[in-house]
Amino acid sequence: MTGKCARSSLSRYLDGEFCDIKDHLRQEISQCDLFKSSSYDLTLDETRDLTAERLHFVLQLPEMRRHLKDQVKERQKAFISKSLGIAEVLCTADIATGVKMGVVCGLFGGAITNLGSPEQKEKWYLPVTELQFTGMFAMTERGHGSNVRGILTEARYEPSSQEFVIHTPCEDAKKMYIGNAMKGNYATVFAQLLVDGESQGPHCFIVPIRDGEGVMYPGVTAIDMKHKEGLHGVDNGILVFDNVRIPRENLLSKFGSVSPDGKYHSPIQNKGKRFNAMLAALTPTRLALTVQAMAAMKLGLIIAVRYSHSRRQFGPRDQEEVKIIEHQTQYLRLMPHLAAALALTFTTRFAAEMMDEAVHHGRDLLNSRSLQALIAGLKAYSTWENLACLQDCRECTGGMGFMMENRIPALKCDSDVFVTFEGDNVVMLQVVVRELMTQYTKQFESSAMFGLLKTWTSSASDSLRTSFLGFSTDKVGNLAFLLKAVSYRERVLQRSLAARLYTKVEKNKNEFFGAWNSCLHHVTSLALAHIHRVTLEQFALAVQACQVSADQTLLTKFCLLHGTSLVYQERAWYLEHSYLTPSTSKMIRTQLLELCKSVKDDALKVVSDFNIPSCCVQAPIAGVANPRAEWAFYLAPEHPDQPQEPKTLSKL
Amino acid sequence: MTGKCARSSLSRYLDGEFCDIKDHLRQEISQCDLFKSSSYDLTLDETRDLTAERLHFVLQLPEMRRHLKDQVKERQKAFISKSLGIAEVLCTADIATGVKMGVVCGLFGGAITNLGSPEQKEKWYLPVTELQFTGMFAMTERGHGSNVRGILTEARYEPSSQEFVIHTPCEDAKKMYIGNAMKGNYATVFAQLLVDGESQGPHCFIVPIRDGEGVMYPGVTAIDMKHKEGLHGVDNGILVFDNVRIPRENLLSKFGSVSPDGKYHSPIQNKGKRFNAMLAALTPTRLALTVQAMAAMKLGLIIAVRYSHSRRQFGPRDQEEVKIIEHQTQYLRLMPHLAAALALTFTTRFAAEMMDEAVHHGRDLLNSRSLQALIAGLKAYSTWENLACLQDCRECTGGMGFMMENRIPALKCDSDVFVTFEGDNVVMLQVVVRELMTQYTKQFESSAMFGLLKTWTSSASDSLRTSFLGFSTDKVGNLAFLLKAVSYRERVLQRSLAARLYTKVEKNKNEFFGAWNSCLHHVTSLALAHIHRVTLEQFALAVQACQVSADQTLLTKFCLLHGTSLVYQERAWYLEHSYLTPSTSKMIRTQLLELCKSVKDDALKVVSDFNIPSCCVQAPIAGVANPRAEWAFYLAPEHPDQPQEPKTLSKL
Repeated sequence: MTGKCARSSLSRYLDGEFCDIKDHLRQEISQCDLFKSSSYDLTLDETRDLTAERLHFVLQLPEMRRHLKDQVKERQKAFISKSLGIAEVLCTADIATGVKMGVVCGLFGGAITNLGSPEQKEKWYLPVTELQFTGMFAMTERGHGSNVRGILTEARYEPSSQEFVIHTPCEDAKKMYIGNAMKGNYATVFAQLLVDGESQGPHCFIVPIRDGEGVMYPGVTAIDMKHKEGLHGVDNGILVFDNVRIPRENLLSKFGSVSPDGKYHSPIQNKGKRFNAMLAALTPTRLALTVQAMAAMKLGLIIAVRYSHSRRQFGPRDQEEVKIIEHQTQYLRLMPHLAAALALTFTTRFAAEMMDEAVHHGRDLLNSRSLQALIAGLKAYSTWENLACLQDCRECTGGMGFMMENRIPALKCDSDVFVTFEGDNVVMLQVVVRELMTQYTKQFESSAMFGLLKTWTSSASDSLRTSFLGFSTDKVGNLAFLLKAVSYRERVLQRSLAARLYTKVEKNKNEFFGAWNSCLHHVTSLALAHIHRVTLEQFALAVQACQVSADQTLLTKFCLLHGTSLVYQERAWYLEHSYLTPSTSKMIRTQLLELCKSVKDDALKVVSDFNIPSCCVQAPIAGVANPRAEWAFYLAPEHPDQPQEPKTLSKL
Repeated sequence: MTGKCARSSLSRYLDGEFCDIKDHLRQEISQCDLFKSSSYDLTLDETRDLTAERLHFVLQLPEMRRHLKDQVKERQKAFISKSLGIAEVLCTADIATGVKMGVVCGLFGGAITNLGSPEQKEKWYLPVTELQFTGMFAMTERGHGSNVRGILTEARYEPSSQEFVIHTPCEDAKKMYIGNAMKGNYATVFAQLLVDGESQGPHCFIVPIRDGEGVMYPGVTAIDMKHKEGLHGVDNGILVFDNVRIPRENLLSKFGSVSPDGKYHSPIQNKGKRFNAMLAALTPTRLALTVQAMAAMKLGLIIAVRYSHSRRQFGPRDQEEVKIIEHQTQYLRLMPHLAAALALTFTTRFAAEMMDEAVHHGRDLLNSRSLQALIAGLKAYSTWENLACLQDCRECTGGMGFMMENRIPALKCDSDVFVTFEGDNVVMLQVVVRELMTQYTKQFESSAMFGLLKTWTSSASDSLRTSFLGFSTDKVGNLAFLLKAVSYRERVLQRSLAARLYTKVEKNKNEFFGAWNSCLHHVTSLALAHIHRVTLEQFALAVQACQVSADQTLLTKFCLLHGTSLVYQERAWYLEHSYLTPSTSKMIRTQLLELCKSVKDDALKVVSDFNIPSCCVQAPIAGVANPRAEWAFYLAPEHPDQPQEPKTLSKL
């Protein structure tokens, strides 16, 4: 299947199983005028129209339509992995288009296909794949963004008319930040279901917003939120419902339905569990954010690495100035991000495959605690790592990096919101820890849990503490050492958090929210430690699985760099816990500097093997000329050692 | 003099000596329609026109004209401090206008007043204060941004016509990123002076660019660089000179002049020293960047702190949700930035006073090594700190922080370039260390220097190392402990850097650039350690000098927080050097969490005492309504304990 891709072995390895459809999409985008470098003079409306046209272009591609129709089928094999591959390619072309597709297919489509009955999927999502209408996803409210459980929008069932009445009871209940709100036709609206005066908790309803001519459905108001930091192509708006009537069939019925005479039925009795099940069904969309952040990161790295290899500044007296990549600070700032981008590539693939596995076998995503933890944590880690990476790319390209032509500013602004939307990162980290801690018990606050915590805190801990302490100093550069270090940190943080919570809640009878809040810094540290560990493990496994020896050697260096960088960042913690001695800690720093230096030339090959077509890179400082900014052009550097392999896409 | 300001004692203290002219400017801006919340739909040209109008409005104010005329006078008392106060106020209203004023008055005006003769000041700068024309500052070239010594533009003297011929010999010599290039009338152009075939190094020339009607001067081309990440109101462009002829009198002659018959004369013989003297004369402008970054930071903090005190999310079961400022992660992210903003306020004031002192007494700024180091380091530290602060403000305000109405996005984008322009921050940090090391000797690479380094590395070091080790653990929260810690770090880093350089260059005969480059991470660490120490010391002195006991108590807490935060950030280093034990390091973390918690309510008073008028704050989430985004409005919180003092400006 990968035979058709005529490019380097590493590039194929990084692209993964779905390189054919990804290549196809790259080709289509490269040939499409809509994706040509666009003007920065467009008005907001023009930018939104362009984004809508771009999305329409992608959705009408026969391969895409075939793929999207699979979404309606049950237990479709590898659907998520394939979708994420597509999402990454689309985001390298334009993040706003990628996000808009995420709203229409991932969120609106995902809500219907995951929460709806087979008939509902046919009726409400199949037309989207046939370009008949688009949808939006209305969960967030003014009063409840991160704390979505407390949403206030009401859906009262009226047996006489067999209708639900969707209503916004107050200012705080207004649906906010809704993507595609100014253009879409239908919304999946989350509202508290009220049947016969009794609340059944949040459910999801299909609410018509406007028809094909743009005429609003009675009682629906959409307010344009207009200008944002980035993602100008995505039309975010506010939805207000004034007793909007929809048919009984518009309640997505997988987790709850109402009979014509007003009897509520659900396969899950507990309201909290029911809502969790609904949210869990939306997990794949969360992973898409990681992929979108990765796309932005890779673009930033291509641009910064290429420019660093062609721009010269400073140097030995009376000699030619050196390439700026030679400056120690330059490679020290860029190389760890490149290693992280590789780690994320493999970890995301792993998470997607786990999810596809679960879906294919009809397993409940809610019960895959470790998968939930991984995806929430990946969302936070990847989106923050992306921002840090793009900021370094921007600074490492100096004034040129501040110019719009060179793409980095827009990448930063477009992807900035990723750290707070679809679950604020700080909240995501709390999800990670909650999931980690409830792997063993069903109710976090049950005494069973605390019984367990109690045992946990007193047993096995000291053997854990000392088991890795006997390393000799020459092992610091060893991957095994690094893997053990990140794993040790996660376990100690977990154990000590459990002990602290146990003391506060069980012994001192503190109220739970206050106890948890007073440990929040600890909680977020643990969550990140967990994700760090998983990314390093997945990177190491991918190195092991790599079949081409030269590629394996290259990836090994970056894997070591990723591990070293993770340990270096947290060396204070390791020193505090006597896991590193002062001298091993200094060795870690030396090792970081040396590894960064050793991969700085390889970096050119790696960014080239990200296989992003020129039309998507666009930046003149990365060697892609732009007639509007000839002054910005720098010839793309060739890799000094490697003869260039045939790259079919390089001239697109 | 400060009697006229009817506001809180802390607000007066933070505003400093020039609160009257600052208040006057605040009042004028508040009443001026040009500064009213502007549309985000403006085209680039419209935005630039608006910025030009805003600048014109400010320059025509009688107080401003009086102040600017002082710039032409020699040894004007406190001119720099007063100018910086004005710059800060203007930047809180609009950063682009502040930057544009920096270009016209600080850079163009500064070049003329610092490098020109009295007649040249009269001729080329006085008209600017009379609104007859504006200017630009043309130093940076395509090939030489940070490494400005290597600029390529030529100025050949032609005795026959008594003219200089200004010429751009190649692509890399084009003047780039020049602010006001599309609107300004004259440029101060830095070019290599060639007299009778001999190069005399870079000098500064007045070159006419376009007349009042916009007609270009013969041989001059200006290319619009158009769209950037931010600062849309500043028209950056490229200048190309094709044998442009200017009169002999247009060479700014303080550090070098050419007689009619082509004899070069300069008070400074050494070319390198001469150029350094020219650059040193421009130091005040560099400090302006710190002030501009501070303005952005303070605005971000006002918005994020107020919103955090009114927005509620999550909370104990069955109770009202808590204000988000109560979340541990929220106050942990925001409070250290607030402490840093205060530290920067006092440190900048100190640096400005030092500079005013030097100027007033006619001292050579070049020879104030510690001042040069301070200003270069402050530029780097403050602009990075600003970006980190604004990013946290953006994330701590969630989706609201991503909306343009709430100001943070534009603050981020406008101030992002500060970290690379007017001296890339990484280069600035190298300037710091060069200045620190040459405080003792005139030539860095001279053997005298290395003789000194040799002594330095072997003597006194161990007593230094141990002298602070005997602290008992209860002193960690003591300001004296924190001051000693940051000072110890600076000295050890300096000593070890000297030792490393000495070994590489003198013992192992490494080439200097390579040796320096291999220590670059060490160099940048030392530079930041230096600035950290100075900011903490200046903060501590300002606390001491504060006359009002309640204010002093408040500032003491923030000063402790700043010191704790600085030590916490670098605790790995302290652990590596056994300056902290694992348990004291953990105490530092606990102390950081507790201090952040203890000041979170005081934060409301502090941001209010920044005394920024509502019309400049603008953000609906900070309690300033905007009719275009009613949905974003959150009532500004009142400080829970403090009764509000009369604030004359709060209703502006």
